[in-house]
Amino acid sequence: MSQPASATQNFRAIDVIRKKRDGLELSRAEIEGLVKAYTAGETPDYQVSAWLMAVVFRGMTRGETAALTDAMLHSGKVLDLSSLPAKKVDKHSTGGVGDKTSLVLAPLAAAAGVAVPMISGRGLGHTGGTLDKLESIPGFNVNLPIADFRRVLETCGCAMIGQTAEIAPADRKLYALRDVTGTVESPYLICASIMSKKLAEGIDALVLDVKTGSGAFMKSEKDAAFLAELMVETGERMGKKMVALITDMDQPLGNMIGNSLEVVECVEILRGGGPEDLRELCLELAGWMLLFGGASKSIADGKQKSAELISSGKALETFRRMIELQGGDPKVIDDPKHLPQARQTMQVKSASAGFVSSMQCEQIGTACVILGGGRERKEDSVDPAVGIILHKKVGDAVTQGEPFATIYYNADSRASRAAQLIGDSYSIADAAPAARRPLIHRVIQSSGEKN
Amino acid sequence: MSQPASATQNFRAIDVIRKKRDGLELSRAEIEGLVKAYTAGETPDYQVSAWLMAVVFRGMTRGETAALTDAMLHSGKVLDLSSLPAKKVDKHSTGGVGDKTSLVLAPLAAAAGVAVPMISGRGLGHTGGTLDKLESIPGFNVNLPIADFRRVLETCGCAMIGQTAEIAPADRKLYALRDVTGTVESPYLICASIMSKKLAEGIDALVLDVKTGSGAFMKSEKDAAFLAELMVETGERMGKKMVALITDMDQPLGNMIGNSLEVVECVEILRGGGPEDLRELCLELAGWMLLFGGASKSIADGKQKSAELISSGKALETFRRMIELQGGDPKVIDDPKHLPQARQTMQVKSASAGFVSSMQCEQIGTACVILGGGRERKEDSVDPAVGIILHKKVGDAVTQGEPFATIYYNADSRASRAAQLIGDSYSIADAAPAARRPLIHRVIQSSGEKN
Repeated sequence: MSQPASATQNFRAIDVIRKKRDGLELSRAEIEGLVKAYTAGETPDYQVSAWLMAVVFRGMTRGETAALTDAMLHSGKVLDLSSLPAKKVDKHSTGGVGDKTSLVLAPLAAAAGVAVPMISGRGLGHTGGTLDKLESIPGFNVNLPIADFRRVLETCGCAMIGQTAEIAPADRKLYALRDVTGTVESPYLICASIMSKKLAEGIDALVLDVKTGSGAFMKSEKDAAFLAELMVETGERMGKKMVALITDMDQPLGNMIGNSLEVVECVEILRGGGPEDLRELCLELAGWMLLFGGASKSIADGKQKSAELISSGKALETFRRMIELQGGDPKVIDDPKHLPQARQTMQVKSASAGFVSSMQCEQIGTACVILGGGRERKEDSVDPAVGIILHKKVGDAVTQGEPFATIYYNADSRASRAAQLIGDSYSIADAAPAARRPLIHRVIQSSGEKN
Repeated sequence: MSQPASATQNFRAIDVIRKKRDGLELSRAEIEGLVKAYTAGETPDYQVSAWLMAVVFRGMTRGETAALTDAMLHSGKVLDLSSLPAKKVDKHSTGGVGDKTSLVLAPLAAAAGVAVPMISGRGLGHTGGTLDKLESIPGFNVNLPIADFRRVLETCGCAMIGQTAEIAPADRKLYALRDVTGTVESPYLICASIMSKKLAEGIDALVLDVKTGSGAFMKSEKDAAFLAELMVETGERMGKKMVALITDMDQPLGNMIGNSLEVVECVEILRGGGPEDLRELCLELAGWMLLFGGASKSIADGKQKSAELISSGKALETFRRMIELQGGDPKVIDDPKHLPQARQTMQVKSASAGFVSSMQCEQIGTACVILGGGRERKEDSVDPAVGIILHKKVGDAVTQGEPFATIYYNADSRASRAAQLIGDSYSIADAAPAARRPLIHRVIQSSGEKN
């Protein structure tokens, strides 16, 4: 196995591997050389995977993280949306169960005059993905060419598509390698992966929703805050306005889980209804998007304006426009019957009486995957119709035999396994929990400043 | 990049990578699965390199190290020499500059009735290799088939060849991968690599010479002792008698460096002459080989018997027999002129007067590589004729203009670069160093027992 030639003159992958292994800081040129040579196919997978594992152990400085993000970002096309007069603002969530705020926030911020060029991902593991939810709308096309994406954005203020081959190809290649080499779980690599894709959208500002709790990738608030600070600082180093909200994912967000069910719940929110926790988080995130987008003077003002755009029906109207422009059937807004429907339902009932003291949130997400609503491997297809509606959440009283949840399913064997998981995920206590976990744990801006 | 199928049922490389990454102990089955699947080409390089880097950071338990050694050993053929009545004992050195004891020890122990089935390596980096030294003897064949190797061993008591394709193929594949992924420098991986090859020789006992100092791979005595203990314990777990001598490599061993020059110096030792340090180390190592081989009652007895076998000429006669049996020209023993001769010589002189206080041993090895006597890459060929004879070593008095060393060379440009390096490697002080580093730092047997 000889040393392969490399993309950048004088670049030797082995030197970069050894330097990282020995805990030394890599230069911008070294990181750029590695990303370029790897993307060009000149540095082989086996050298990059060794380097990735060294990063898992050694971590990266803020400068290295920014350099990696920058190199990955510039491995592909960076959208130039400077011809749009509006400020471009996006939101990104690290993912959770029932986490559907993107479908509310894009039209809501767009209705306020902020441009939202949103490039999203698919669900993986126990969490859902924005693209899968959008695709439950009959006809909705998440694979628009960039020119069409721009046209939708110019017409209705927001557009939502999947990652294209042109956006951050280095990230796609690195992520595939990380996935099979045990190197996914490094906050530095997670940061560079997320930020390189998001910054390729040509945005001015980014609002991050970093989840923590039993249904999040970052179970502890400490880990979530570390990743949040890293992403905020990386974005700011690249000239973007940044904020990260550490929000709760110790139980699902809202009551509906599953692709078409989550579209239904988003429409409810945009009609002024829907569950309180989902509405509160949407308004909080929208407050930041409007502030960053120059559409409000403060967070409070932004939340107020957002609430008005919901009351007036303007946000829902924007969602309808976007669906139409992306080829989807807008009738789903008027009647959920136009969304895919599961053939059967089943109730998961409580075996005892008391109060819900906690929920194993990841298990509930996994139950939805078992029903067919998510994917365990990238190649899997999803069933848009299946899902779960929760009737009880943490703190709620429950009597014996009362349903925790209703399962929407198409296959009996899957339903019984999912029901078992959901039932087991509820803990019942004699008294209501003394303290509730807050919905928003912390707000992180540069230098860890809290608002 | 999807998960490839694997050699052993239920074996998933990603699980083994994650487990090692997270600091958990791998089972024997997991390690065996990884080695088998990799050797069979079913687990790709990029997963194994990530695992190797995780091992660099996490290390291995004694059980894991033994399991890895065992799996690598059994990836190929293990010689069965049980038909030979004599005990089979080998020596292995971790490598140094002027480290030529194998050429003395194999015939010396064989002359005492111990069988020495020695499979050696080539020089790499600043250190020399036994095979390169042997090949400076015109006609000497280090690539004997196993059947011929056995015949030579049965006839004269020792035989010296290179690694064949049949011996530990997993090590060859793993070493090539380690070489390009910055994962060479793990004592656990070094131990498994050395021990898997040596134990494939079908030996009963192994004497290890672990070098420490400026010319060794393990610069610090602490690192050398750690590796030594690891190898001793691994060998003992596999039922072998083991000892490791931590010996000095802060200056070259003996006075001659370079392939044919080192053969000359070995013949001098076998004639009862040669430099004191080399003679002392050979007798010490031979003492252990004779003891383990049942040819002496104690180390002291083994050293005494070895000295007698040199005085009587029996050891030299065995060397002559082995050379003949392996196709080499035995006249090199009677007259060094039969070995390849360099065309020119050059002296490296001292710029000042005083005492040699230290030598940068690795630089002297590198000077020999520059002359063409070693290889920087595996593909390089070596010039058997070139080398260095040292006239001064640590503690020696030197006057201004007196030569430190004589360079034997074939190319002018190389000679001047080598001379510069050698000159720079000597440090001169006003007084002789108060304390000399011992030749033998420590002797390590099981549970760190010292003799």
